Amino acid sequence: MSSMELWYTEKQTENFGITMKIKQTMVHEQTDFQELAMIETEEYGNMLVLDGMVMTTERDEFVYHEMVAHPSLFTHPNPENVLVVGGGDGGVIREVLKHPQVKKAVLVDIDGKVIEYSKQYLPSIAGKLEDPRVEVIVNDGYMHIHDHKNTYDVIMVDSTEPVGPAVNLFTKGFYQGIYDALKEDGIFVAQTDNPWFKADLIQSVNRDVKEVFPIVRVYIANIPTYPSGLWTFTMGSKKYDPLAVDESAIPEIETKYYTPRLHKAAFALPKFVEDLTK
Amino acid sequence: MSSMELWYTEKQTENFGITMKIKQTMVHEQTDFQELAMIETEEYGNMLVLDGMVMTTERDEFVYHEMVAHPSLFTHPNPENVLVVGGGDGGVIREVLKHPQVKKAVLVDIDGKVIEYSKQYLPSIAGKLEDPRVEVIVNDGYMHIHDHKNTYDVIMVDSTEPVGPAVNLFTKGFYQGIYDALKEDGIFVAQTDNPWFKADLIQSVNRDVKEVFPIVRVYIANIPTYPSGLWTFTMGSKKYDPLAVDESAIPEIETKYYTPRLHKAAFALPKFVEDLTK
Repeated sequence: MSSMELWYTEKQTENFGITMKIKQTMVHEQTDFQELAMIETEEYGNMLVLDGMVMTTERDEFVYHEMVAHPSLFTHPNPENVLVVGGGDGGVIREVLKHPQVKKAVLVDIDGKVIEYSKQYLPSIAGKLEDPRVEVIVNDGYMHIHDHKNTYDVIMVDSTEPVGPAVNLFTKGFYQGIYDALKEDGIFVAQTDNPWFKADLIQSVNRDVKEVFPIVRVYIANIPTYPSGLWTFTMGSKKYDPLAVDESAIPEIETKYYTPRLHKAAFALPKFVEDLTK
Repeated sequence: MSSMELWYTEKQTENFGITMKIKQTMVHEQTDFQELAMIETEEYGNMLVLDGMVMTTERDEFVYHEMVAHPSLFTHPNPENVLVVGGGDGGVIREVLKHPQVKKAVLVDIDGKVIEYSKQYLPSIAGKLEDPRVEVIVNDGYMHIHDHKNTYDVIMVDSTEPVGPAVNLFTKGFYQGIYDALKEDGIFVAQTDNPWFKADLIQSVNRDVKEVFPIVRVYIANIPTYPSGLWTFTMGSKKYDPLAVDESAIPEIETKYYTPRLHKAAFALPKFVEDLTK
């Protein structure tokens, strides 16, 4: 029993951050692509940190992973082939597999170390990467997208911020590539950061995705360990509108955040966020 | 120009907190009721701290104040007499006054120092306390409620956490007092903390308010400087259901968070929050 207190502090902006008491740091290394840390915290359980930014924690991961996966999968009537770009921790894949129509879920992460350490230290998140419906590919998502035309029903981009290896994943060229990799009625969704400190990013992504997809919608969720606690997701769709879904027909699946009752409500944006999408 | 960096760090739980760079501390004193600080921060502007907890900041205050005021005022068809218990910073009052039907808005805060320093350091929040429709009373809200039967159309409880002077404001006796202070079709709303770290509180308040009011609804908003970024509000109503409101009939008023499109969506709760209200 040590009397020494260790705290992880993340400056989420130059002038604001979160701080959490930690038990130990299991991993801290430079991979071929980014700085990776796996830390055991008191409040949030084990936590994955990439380039100094919290990616996921055992306690609050369900919000992000459910909200990446379910709104698009419950908008597409028959999502058989799903691609997750990034997301090496496996959390989005776990949620995707809750949909019985999904025949194949492909994960493409550029950094094999994220997958390896997630399996070791975040088993409740990464455990489903072993599922027979899952194919794990260690590769650049940008390249994978451009090599697969007319292939996927739903593509989910679970990337880090647009710094480091993810910078290409926030370009119009990438969105056009995704459009081409989707089937004729495909849906795309990406995490698009928070409106308090990254308003410019949300606006520019929204503008770019609108140039590629006919239907573009932004929705939100609360994630305590992400900057401001308010996260946005941008959906681009060729045919199906998430707001045209009959919520009463959405089956109940086992979740802790998403519900059919929340499906459309998540798209009702605070005024200052709504203004970023105009 | 100093090279010294000062940071305000608030432990929101034993093991988690926020930290923000500050420019200066204008006020830090023990009032008759609580420890009060007024701090100028880099990211959030001026900030009021009571008993070591951020109450409001110039940058994100609009969320809390709008979301205390508008859902109930747009549910009641003719809210003429409104009471705000606590809320000495004046932010809720400012929002209440945006409703032309309101003839009188009474603010009862136990601590005159909160009002005084808010007028001085948070003028964009407290400025409307001088409005002729407003009556400011420095008194115990609990006592005021019990001295005013059948008086108000809407009562809003903008209190601190249930520690210190606000502990009485989270009791069934208080909710019964509010019920009696409301007219026969009155509505009550209170801030009820966050579901990540204070799940027990939300459950117990929900149980208690249900014993007093026939209609009880919980809604949420994102507040970056509050623990977890996700805040709940509990509404108790004698007659009008906020979910029965015709959103298309809600007039647009000048807001930065609340919109008519968000009115019902704010009541769509994440599954783990919904479970706390059952």
